[in-house]
Amino acid sequence: MTTKELAFAASTLWVVLAAILVLFMQAGFAFLEAGLTRMKNVGHIAAKNVLILGIVSIVYYLVGFGIAFGDGGNGLIGGSGFVPSVEELVAIGAEPFSWFSAIPGAAAYLFEVAFAAVSLAIVWGAMAERTRLWVYLVFGIAFTLIYSFVSHWIWSPDGWLFAKGMQDFAGSTVVHYQGALAGLAGALLLGPRIGKFVDGKPQPIPGHNMAYTTLGVLILWFGWFGFNPGSTLSVDFGGVGFFAYVALNTNLAAAAGVLGAVTASWLVIKKPDLSMMLNGAIAALVAITAACAFVAPWAAIVIGFVAGVIVVLGSLLVERVGIDDPVGALAAHGMAGVWGTISLGFLTVPSLAESLATGKAGLFYGGGLNQLGVQLLGLAAVGAFTFTASFLVLWVMKVTVGIRAEPEVETMGLDVSEHGMWGYPEFYIPVPGGYGTESHGAAVSPGLRHQATTPALVGQAPA
Amino acid sequence: MTTKELAFAASTLWVVLAAILVLFMQAGFAFLEAGLTRMKNVGHIAAKNVLILGIVSIVYYLVGFGIAFGDGGNGLIGGSGFVPSVEELVAIGAEPFSWFSAIPGAAAYLFEVAFAAVSLAIVWGAMAERTRLWVYLVFGIAFTLIYSFVSHWIWSPDGWLFAKGMQDFAGSTVVHYQGALAGLAGALLLGPRIGKFVDGKPQPIPGHNMAYTTLGVLILWFGWFGFNPGSTLSVDFGGVGFFAYVALNTNLAAAAGVLGAVTASWLVIKKPDLSMMLNGAIAALVAITAACAFVAPWAAIVIGFVAGVIVVLGSLLVERVGIDDPVGALAAHGMAGVWGTISLGFLTVPSLAESLATGKAGLFYGGGLNQLGVQLLGLAAVGAFTFTASFLVLWVMKVTVGIRAEPEVETMGLDVSEHGMWGYPEFYIPVPGGYGTESHGAAVSPGLRHQATTPALVGQAPA
Amino acid sequence: MTTKELAFAASTLWVVLAAILVLFMQAGFAFLEAGLTRMKNVGHIAAKNVLILGIVSIVYYLVGFGIAFGDGGNGLIGGSGFVPSVEELVAIGAEPFSWFSAIPGAAAYLFEVAFAAVSLAIVWGAMAERTRLWVYLVFGIAFTLIYSFVSHWIWSPDGWLFAKGMQDFAGSTVVHYQGALAGLAGALLLGPRIGKFVDGKPQPIPGHNMAYTTLGVLILWFGWFGFNPGSTLSVDFGGVGFFAYVALNTNLAAAAGVLGAVTASWLVIKKPDLSMMLNGAIAALVAITAACAFVAPWAAIVIGFVAGVIVVLGSLLVERVGIDDPVGALAAHGMAGVWGTISLGFLTVPSLAESLATGKAGLFYGGGLNQLGVQLLGLAAVGAFTFTASFLVLWVMKVTVGIRAEPEVETMGLDVSEHGMWGYPEFYIPVPGGYGTESHGAAVSPGLRHQATTPALVGQAPA
Repeated sequence: MTTKELAFAASTLWVVLAAILVLFMQAGFAFLEAGLTRMKNVGHIAAKNVLILGIVSIVYYLVGFGIAFGDGGNGLIGGSGFVPSVEELVAIGAEPFSWFSAIPGAAAYLFEVAFAAVSLAIVWGAMAERTRLWVYLVFGIAFTLIYSFVSHWIWSPDGWLFAKGMQDFAGSTVVHYQGALAGLAGALLLGPRIGKFVDGKPQPIPGHNMAYTTLGVLILWFGWFGFNPGSTLSVDFGGVGFFAYVALNTNLAAAAGVLGAVTASWLVIKKPDLSMMLNGAIAALVAITAACAFVAPWAAIVIGFVAGVIVVLGSLLVERVGIDDPVGALAAHGMAGVWGTISLGFLTVPSLAESLATGKAGLFYGGGLNQLGVQLLGLAAVGAFTFTASFLVLWVMKVTVGIRAEPEVETMGLDVSEHGMWGYPEFYIPVPGGYGTESHGAAVSPGLRHQATTPALVGQAPA
Repeated sequence: MTTKELAFAASTLWVVLAAILVLFMQAGFAFLEAGLTRMKNVGHIAAKNVLILGIVSIVYYLVGFGIAFGDGGNGLIGGSGFVPSVEELVAIGAEPFSWFSAIPGAAAYLFEVAFAAVSLAIVWGAMAERTRLWVYLVFGIAFTLIYSFVSHWIWSPDGWLFAKGMQDFAGSTVVHYQGALAGLAGALLLGPRIGKFVDGKPQPIPGHNMAYTTLGVLILWFGWFGFNPGSTLSVDFGGVGFFAYVALNTNLAAAAGVLGAVTASWLVIKKPDLSMMLNGAIAALVAITAACAFVAPWAAIVIGFVAGVIVVLGSLLVERVGIDDPVGALAAHGMAGVWGTISLGFLTVPSLAESLATGKAGLFYGGGLNQLGVQLLGLAAVGAFTFTASFLVLWVMKVTVGIRAEPEVETMGLDVSEHGMWGYPEFYIPVPGGYGTESHGAAVSPGLRHQATTPALVGQAPA
Repeated sequence: MTTKELAFAASTLWVVLAAILVLFMQAGFAFLEAGLTRMKNVGHIAAKNVLILGIVSIVYYLVGFGIAFGDGGNGLIGGSGFVPSVEELVAIGAEPFSWFSAIPGAAAYLFEVAFAAVSLAIVWGAMAERTRLWVYLVFGIAFTLIYSFVSHWIWSPDGWLFAKGMQDFAGSTVVHYQGALAGLAGALLLGPRIGKFVDGKPQPIPGHNMAYTTLGVLILWFGWFGFNPGSTLSVDFGGVGFFAYVALNTNLAAAAGVLGAVTASWLVIKKPDLSMMLNGAIAALVAITAACAFVAPWAAIVIGFVAGVIVVLGSLLVERVGIDDPVGALAAHGMAGVWGTISLGFLTVPSLAESLATGKAGLFYGGGLNQLGVQLLGLAAVGAFTFTASFLVLWVMKVTVGIRAEPEVETMGLDVSEHGMWGYPEFYIPVPGGYGTESHGAAVSPGLRHQATTPALVGQAPA
């Protein structure tokens, strides 16, 4: 290999490994979401992440990647690269994916499809425990397309928001805010789970396994080292080994997010709530995603800490306004995504803006209001488009076929009703009056209730 | 470093990282298998993967690596590289491992031992929940040797099937089909679990934790990005960064396998069975393993989708003929492995056959029947050798010492009987008449049955 | 990029990926520890690893990294690099982190902070199930500082033990022995868990989930491939691709540790105890950590096997002397860490000592007693400093605020008492007389006991 070929090989190595880390985040989302919800739905919730990874991988290959990054398009949509061929995928820095100058099209596909899959995984958290299985299939396809359009606008050099100078290094807006917007549309159209609100007052429905949630968060933290640093798309963007700096900022922000959420939890709800603390790491990782290449380490700490506070207050606010978001996705991905997107308008370091040849110094460094304005414009445009498009698709699905599980199905759990099996067949006997039903407030313990039986069900389930 | 040394460094980096991913697949197999079996065996099933990783690592260092890849052998066996020295392990592209031209012997060992460990992990799935612990130890050693011979035949440039032109890029035959063949021998010699067949009719014995199975599948999917793309063994085999293309095909096939299995499950058993769906991803990954470097993306999708269908129909067929394969390994690794090995005879792209300087265009592209014939010959030879050798070793073990757990031990669970402890000591009270015993069809719920007690046992177990 | 820049890029790529693997070890520790303890504490135990990762990441950025590796210090402490700036973090081989000659400061931070986090994670295992939450926060800060001092002494070229020639390639002493010393201080100051010793006789308190422990061990094994091989800090330290050799030794030792622990368990406690077997892998990985770059493969096997025996005998010894170490950390990290640190004094290969330009041949190869003496001096000095400092800090915390949970809180479980929630809210009803209380030896099964209720608690917990 020549020196130039070696540089291609090293960058491809980096981006492929980063993509693998990001793809593994599906396990993180599966366990974060499964841990924060109830055991009667655990098989459904965990396994559907495998299903949506299947859907997004195919749809993105067929059309999404071309919409997002194909050469020869306009400000709204890419113009080639649909169902790419072997030759198009092995070429480096060539049409139809010439935007990726240091890696083959195949590496770019792998990295970008992993991002689409993360955005899609976020959607379902806010819709958990009450959505019918077919919705994952059909809305999964629709959202992959919606996502691809917006990623074109912001990340393709042809995109209209790119042209305006919007900065979103690894996708606080493109990936996280978008996922949360679609989740919000879904949560509104579905309505809350049975038993979540009694006389308008929110009731806690605790997740069933904090160990799963912890595993989910640590897998996500791990995967984020592919997500953010991998977005350099080469080993020398911003300087040789600059991706290590991006990784450092990512780690500092996540750490600060944990501390921010613990602090806020202690102050606001008077105890160090574990699910809040864990979501604090996620919110901070979401927030630093846009800014990770542009800000100083102290700023990464500030961004992460504030995101940790946001997730606590935001989760309470979401509940207060009557929306049922079982895993806190609207606060962790939506509100923290907005904060991260705005933050770089304040905190971009002049020397980094220069060495990355992109963006402007933040307001804090005397960079003026221009960058902030562009960031807000982007948030408004994406907010309007993604929420509206998602709402429309889900609304049509709702009024034609129906998107919400029947009440008895929801009470029984989606594992049995949608898949004919239990996630934990030896642990669980679904009973009327279990968690999350109208009789939730009864004094008898949920554990004891599990010992009651529903004869019709019990007779059929294991056989 | 010179440019040449840098190329060695980059390839070593790639292969070592790929090997690490493949070694992590042990966690995937542990959780796939533990999730699809019953909780009374969970500690035994999960932890034995750590034990066999120990065995295979040592045996492969002592003799397996030399049998498979040592220089100076013949068509059947390698001729050097046994108990390799420090000097032999740090040299690059030199004796006794000159076949690995871009990486040191140590990197090659690490990558290849991870493959042997995967093949061995597959064996146990079909033998789960009724095998005595010593079998893992002794057959683990025997199978590591069997495996090493076949990998020599197909992957070493001295091997007789290599000489005939057999293609198996990352081991649909070498790793997966072989593991399934040994598993089949074991399942036949062991017979079905107590309660699996009642009056000749198969009874479902559901796995105890779909979240574990999901985690297992996602870890395997993740690890497969080391398995297949890492088999380039350098950063420029097939072209600079060609491994990214292999990764893309791997991902598309896995995705299509999920969809294939869901479709088949919906059509055949009228519901989207979660364990089928999850096994669909595995079967597709198995099938694309042989073909991943040779076929077009559309063909990867076809290969994966068909594998997903195969796993559904194959699992039902295995059950129909009276074999008890608790995790579906015979269909997912055996049948899908055969399909993958054959598929490239149909679908190899002429330009890839050329740039890889290996194999011939597939029948679909007018490449004739020759390659298909070689693939079938390889399958027949490996099938005869590995099944016979495994059957003989296990048969001798059966008639001399015994390979199956005693009925009361099996009913009680292997955690208590083999290890003197429970996998979940606070959850589980083993009872006579639990799942998988003759009284399985009773109307009383399994959960209720757990509340019955076996006084003798309960008194002794936790203390 | 020039050839030199490419070499920097490749080394940065390697070290960043290794750091990511080591950071993921937090999930391994979380699940190892959660699996080996009781379900009433599972949320607390798993999730606190996220909290301490937050603390150590920030503290190490602010001061720890400078203490350990900053230029211009003396034998005891580094002299710069506190709260490093953007410029200091992106520069390669420059002040204040010139010790890292092939990677930017940011990559060095990421790698070294991951090691500090591992050392800190070890501490808590010995203190599990009875420590108040604030201790993690405050002692986490203190230990990060203690750790940073010792890592300066041994790993910085300015350090006084470095100057004496002490060898500890990846931290058997720096990381593992230190963590165990602090854990010992904590275990002594806390005293045993309620019910651990009855009339002075140790009672088994089995861990609640062997599948979690298995996952923890496999994640740690996986992460150790970053830990040991990554400590080359470049792709050509010791020769191009030498890190692959380090990985091979690491794998062989771990494998032998499993076999050593199984053998010892079979001989000593007459059954292949699963938790011993799993801890055997950990102990072996700990022991090979110091020696992995210096010894031959056969020696790695010996070192690992002996460590596996040590963990069995050591765990029994710790219990015999009346110390309650719920996860076996004192044996696995402390005793095995000492063994590993000493072992290279016996087994260092002359050619490796030479090519690494460091250390001397071991006693076995005629290298004399000098190296052994230095290793013992280092162990004594670190033992005295880290134990004393940790004991003092924890003692002050104990006498001022208190470090141990109240008895009723401990009996109830830390999930409810410290966090106001249960780790598994749908599984668990805490009862008086559960595992680990004085009535532990009663004949009634623990599972049945869970069906008893504590009305006051049950009424409040789910609501």
